[in-house]
Amino acid sequence: MSYFRKNIDAMEGYTPGKQPKGEGYIKLNTNENPFPPSPRVLDAIKAAANDELRKYPDPMATAAREKAAEVFGVEPEMVLCGNGSDELLTMIIRAFAGAGDLIVTPYPTYSLYETLAEIQGARLERIDFEEDYSLPKDFARPEAKITFVPNPNSPSGTVVSKEALRQLAGRLKGMLVVDEAYVEFADGNCLDLVHELPNVIVLRTFSKSFSLAGMRVGFAFAKREIIDGLVKVKDSYNVNRLFIAAAVAGLDDTAYVRANAEKIRSNRAYLTEQLEGLGAFVWPSQSNFVLARFAPPVSAERLFEELEARKILVRYFKQRRLEDCLRITVGTREEIDALMAAVAELVESKAVMV
Amino acid sequence: MSYFRKNIDAMEGYTPGKQPKGEGYIKLNTNENPFPPSPRVLDAIKAAANDELRKYPDPMATAAREKAAEVFGVEPEMVLCGNGSDELLTMIIRAFAGAGDLIVTPYPTYSLYETLAEIQGARLERIDFEEDYSLPKDFARPEAKITFVPNPNSPSGTVVSKEALRQLAGRLKGMLVVDEAYVEFADGNCLDLVHELPNVIVLRTFSKSFSLAGMRVGFAFAKREIIDGLVKVKDSYNVNRLFIAAAVAGLDDTAYVRANAEKIRSNRAYLTEQLEGLGAFVWPSQSNFVLARFAPPVSAERLFEELEARKILVRYFKQRRLEDCLRITVGTREEIDALMAAVAELVESKAVMV
Repeated sequence: MSYFRKNIDAMEGYTPGKQPKGEGYIKLNTNENPFPPSPRVLDAIKAAANDELRKYPDPMATAAREKAAEVFGVEPEMVLCGNGSDELLTMIIRAFAGAGDLIVTPYPTYSLYETLAEIQGARLERIDFEEDYSLPKDFARPEAKITFVPNPNSPSGTVVSKEALRQLAGRLKGMLVVDEAYVEFADGNCLDLVHELPNVIVLRTFSKSFSLAGMRVGFAFAKREIIDGLVKVKDSYNVNRLFIAAAVAGLDDTAYVRANAEKIRSNRAYLTEQLEGLGAFVWPSQSNFVLARFAPPVSAERLFEELEARKILVRYFKQRRLEDCLRITVGTREEIDALMAAVAELVESKAVMV
Repeated sequence: MSYFRKNIDAMEGYTPGKQPKGEGYIKLNTNENPFPPSPRVLDAIKAAANDELRKYPDPMATAAREKAAEVFGVEPEMVLCGNGSDELLTMIIRAFAGAGDLIVTPYPTYSLYETLAEIQGARLERIDFEEDYSLPKDFARPEAKITFVPNPNSPSGTVVSKEALRQLAGRLKGMLVVDEAYVEFADGNCLDLVHELPNVIVLRTFSKSFSLAGMRVGFAFAKREIIDGLVKVKDSYNVNRLFIAAAVAGLDDTAYVRANAEKIRSNRAYLTEQLEGLGAFVWPSQSNFVLARFAPPVSAERLFEELEARKILVRYFKQRRLEDCLRITVGTREEIDALMAAVAELVESKAVMV
């Protein structure tokens, strides 16, 4: 006998990328930023570590909300703070999709959407991306309560055009969630769709471009009516006082973020070139990672394992369309050089052949 | 037309106690601790505000989990960390109760349980406490998926015996959640029920006794199988790196917490005496607040309003059994004296008569 709901018993749960406990790893598996966070953010956190922590935080994190509104050119009422995009995704699922309701995602993509659907007992339909990771023409399922499109997509790093998303939203009766976790590494973004369209939510996070994965800072943007409804679902005091201090300071120092993103874009071109030089195919990435496909007789899975044995972590997804691929976070030049030296050696020594 | 689920549209949402933005308030409305947090916790947070924040936190917050296990005498696998008890309550609802399932709470109690049931579309049955806030003999609903019992209860401050809870759990086919948010101010606790019983979850928080409401630190304790299932429902990286640092440091300094709790118990006796001296009835409190009933012609609601006009915040619940009561957080001696001077003046001047 189990005390749990049947759908909870049936599910396996999401597996986050490995967070090694030891030292000496080159960690290119969870799309963290190789550069440290802004010193202004660290100072703001230290300043907020004071006696005021005895009091509850502002339930709406108003200071962070207003700063985000200012930086992103929206009204404060169009902003909601969450513990990473993850908490906002959880709120969205709970607010818009009940048991049995349809949720749509492209495939392959971030598998957390699937986990969230399972938790809620919702029905998930995964629709294959085209080979070039554009959305297929018949992607829209008008009856879907939520359609998730990460843009740039993970693990492909590719982007869908704003026009494609605008048209998609227009064909949907439910919500379109554009998850822009990696957008600061891309050439454009879709934030202004939230002004135009009543059924679009755009998500942002500090985890990648702001070098603050450890702080869990996320934002949702949408029309006021949508944010108001999400607020009903959120925990009363969902983000802590240090979150608010870090969020405000981070948004006050976007020049720092842009400079780091520029370095990562440059390193991304370098990494792509190196991988292509070894015969891999790399999809055009607008993210802080690349998806590389290795041709037989090189086995991506063996390569993943051998790299891990050398304390170099990349991400391997044992699933359809990704069996021959590795997702590799763009690190520093030194990390890329160490990775590529290991890859070249493994390929040459035929240690990773099928 | 609404994009939201019907139950979300139908609900109003939980209203947290007022968090005033201005200065000069005496804040006795949200059961915060009047004493500052341990300096060791603040130091630990400052030390953790470093470049490591670029990396994701440990998904299981292992350091905090192991420290809690050590302090509370359980196995690490019996501990789960959450952003306050609130996030843990949300996980519990999502894991154990689907739409239409029965959830039971006593009445009157913490109204968040009701909000969570509404979000989930679950069915809520509220069963009245006896007049002395003991549980009625026929309280058990064996078919309930979850039964919530805050112990000490809010807003009454009263406790139910461990034996009563043990018997209750034995009669239930679903989970019993004992929410011990205020237990450090009480004479005993029920944590060891998680060793005995497969269907008991005990919740703890740093918000009251640890003076860290602003950090959102909560713990769930239960048998390993229960924690394993809850993990499937939690966001992958639900608590941030500073949470983990604060939790470990806080649990390393429980002597500080005990000393503050002792002061609050002493102040609670003083506040109770003062209120009784003015003719109010005060339920025997084991918490850091008291529930005081005012006899006609004094109006609790008028008293609440007049105190607020004087920048003294207490909590008034306009609902059955509480219309003639105020819930008052136990503050410092100075805060209590200021409160009681205002109450005495208002009562004497007949400014708060029905």
